[in-house]
Amino acid sequence: MLRCSRCGRTYPETFRLTCDCGGTLLVEGPGAGFTPFGHLDMRRYLAHLPIGSLVPVPVPGITPISEIEVGRVRAIFKLEYLHPSGSFKDRGTWVTVAKLLGEGIDEVVLDSSGNAALSFALYALPAGIKLHAFISYDARREKVLLLQKLGAIVHYVEGDRTVIHERAREYAEEKGLTYVTHWLNPYFIEGTKTIAFEVFEQFGVPDYAFAPTGSGTLLLGLWKGFRELKEMGEIAELPRLVAVQASGYESLCERSPFTNSLADGIAIPRPPRLDDMRRALRETNGMCVSVSRSETEGALSWLKRAGFLVEPTSAVALAGLWKLIETGEIPDGSSALLPLTGSGLKLTEGI
Amino acid sequence: MLRCSRCGRTYPETFRLTCDCGGTLLVEGPGAGFTPFGHLDMRRYLAHLPIGSLVPVPVPGITPISEIEVGRVRAIFKLEYLHPSGSFKDRGTWVTVAKLLGEGIDEVVLDSSGNAALSFALYALPAGIKLHAFISYDARREKVLLLQKLGAIVHYVEGDRTVIHERAREYAEEKGLTYVTHWLNPYFIEGTKTIAFEVFEQFGVPDYAFAPTGSGTLLLGLWKGFRELKEMGEIAELPRLVAVQASGYESLCERSPFTNSLADGIAIPRPPRLDDMRRALRETNGMCVSVSRSETEGALSWLKRAGFLVEPTSAVALAGLWKLIETGEIPDGSSALLPLTGSGLKLTEGI
Repeated sequence: MLRCSRCGRTYPETFRLTCDCGGTLLVEGPGAGFTPFGHLDMRRYLAHLPIGSLVPVPVPGITPISEIEVGRVRAIFKLEYLHPSGSFKDRGTWVTVAKLLGEGIDEVVLDSSGNAALSFALYALPAGIKLHAFISYDARREKVLLLQKLGAIVHYVEGDRTVIHERAREYAEEKGLTYVTHWLNPYFIEGTKTIAFEVFEQFGVPDYAFAPTGSGTLLLGLWKGFRELKEMGEIAELPRLVAVQASGYESLCERSPFTNSLADGIAIPRPPRLDDMRRALRETNGMCVSVSRSETEGALSWLKRAGFLVEPTSAVALAGLWKLIETGEIPDGSSALLPLTGSGLKLTEGI
Repeated sequence: MLRCSRCGRTYPETFRLTCDCGGTLLVEGPGAGFTPFGHLDMRRYLAHLPIGSLVPVPVPGITPISEIEVGRVRAIFKLEYLHPSGSFKDRGTWVTVAKLLGEGIDEVVLDSSGNAALSFALYALPAGIKLHAFISYDARREKVLLLQKLGAIVHYVEGDRTVIHERAREYAEEKGLTYVTHWLNPYFIEGTKTIAFEVFEQFGVPDYAFAPTGSGTLLLGLWKGFRELKEMGEIAELPRLVAVQASGYESLCERSPFTNSLADGIAIPRPPRLDDMRRALRETNGMCVSVSRSETEGALSWLKRAGFLVEPTSAVALAGLWKLIETGEIPDGSSALLPLTGSGLKLTEGI
């Protein structure tokens, strides 16, 4: 069942982005206990996912964690860049493509700065789903090339992320196609919530969970996953969520006068799920921190020396942790989850 | 305990490449039963690995499998490119670096066409081990750039893989440094054998196990892993091993007059573990097949459309399977493991 975050109205579990009132939707969690299967990949959590008999390939794996002391904080790095398309987005894409296959939808429209489109293209191709990807002229060349090699029809748009979002929606309406933006898609969050399930099995519940936050799909996935574990009686408390944003593109933190364009994956100044994100922070006694370009560069360099080849957007989580350790907001002895969201191997020049 | 494959002499488990007689070494498997731990990463198999208390980071994960019908054969693709450095080599590197850390070795020499060096550089950097990498002038530019970014000291050599191997060994001797070539290193095979453990847990025992085969580290890892499972009483029979080689660089198959230089990772005409490899094929009633450049290109294209972004060397396994289905050597209804060894994301121009 889908439920509107604004008016509470419910809908059956078909593919749908918003409530008729304009509010955002979430899938209602199953009430049963936590029952991971024996699979050593994402099928482990099929009992908790809105997926029928059609399971897309490749199946995303269980990503490993590496525990490293950062100052006096135990950082749990989760290597979310080790997915088939090189980013955590494969989790959300996998659940979404399963849903589309189940409904016989074979042509869709989306917009993305790169990673979400790349992930969707990778899963759409074997699934036989035709993809129209709306992207910015500024999108990284390597990502666009790969997108085209994966058979996506690329539509370039002049303008910021919000403009691209609008153009894609208009195109879908005009052509009668399904618009699948991960900014709104409730099934995408069903996929990203499995990060919380894995961390729970691999480590337990960290004191803090950081998320590079633009559209909020990772932040909301972590929130929903840990909340379901609590509802299922597995854990007593959720981790405190920390939304890490890029300077100049803040939607939750105060807007900075200068911009961190290095973290292009979260350069989303007006995300449509803002109310959901505020609720996630409020419910977990969470917080927001924004980081600059130079702070991101420093974190990226540290990550490379620690053996993590990630793209700049991934590095903001560590930059945010450093900042909150410095201000004393994250005390010594804490544990903090830092998902590393995207691979640097697409961008060998940039890392 | 290390045992010489040629004369049977044993050595204690310190870092060593060959027997005094010149023969190759393997670690003797532990006699105990198969006891995977609860970890959802490579630490799952610590009871079966020669690793002490120093565990390098990042810990490689359990790679997912995708089962797809290829003709009437059930292909089990194992996504070995989803490791921190983008190739299956991280398994062998991880065990090797653990051993080097345990012995306090902090400067080493190796030779590699790219992936093994890249993997080692990634793990050496956080471990504080200085790496001299001997590579060909022909090595792919993206891999060399990344190697340098990871702090490796790159030594270019004019000549084929065997010449580079010799230069690296000479340099190590001259400078009194440890030479860690994966072509001989018995601890590397301890790492790659965990692929067999995972496949056993994820699927069971396939009828055939394919391995792109140059130096033989993957073929021998599969052989040793499944053999240990048999010794531990977990399985009755080993899969039949299939060594897939590149035309013109065959060491096990008959040498072709034309060369498949696309599969650069296995372009190794005279591997030092040839006797071990012959034994692995003999013991498993295995076989060898060699594939051309155009067969590799066809397989690479098929893999991309199936959602696997891999480098050309990975594709030879599928090309080999096609060939053996066509000749009737692999019968309908069989199951075949195909490890996909290296990521295509380093080489976005080439896939």
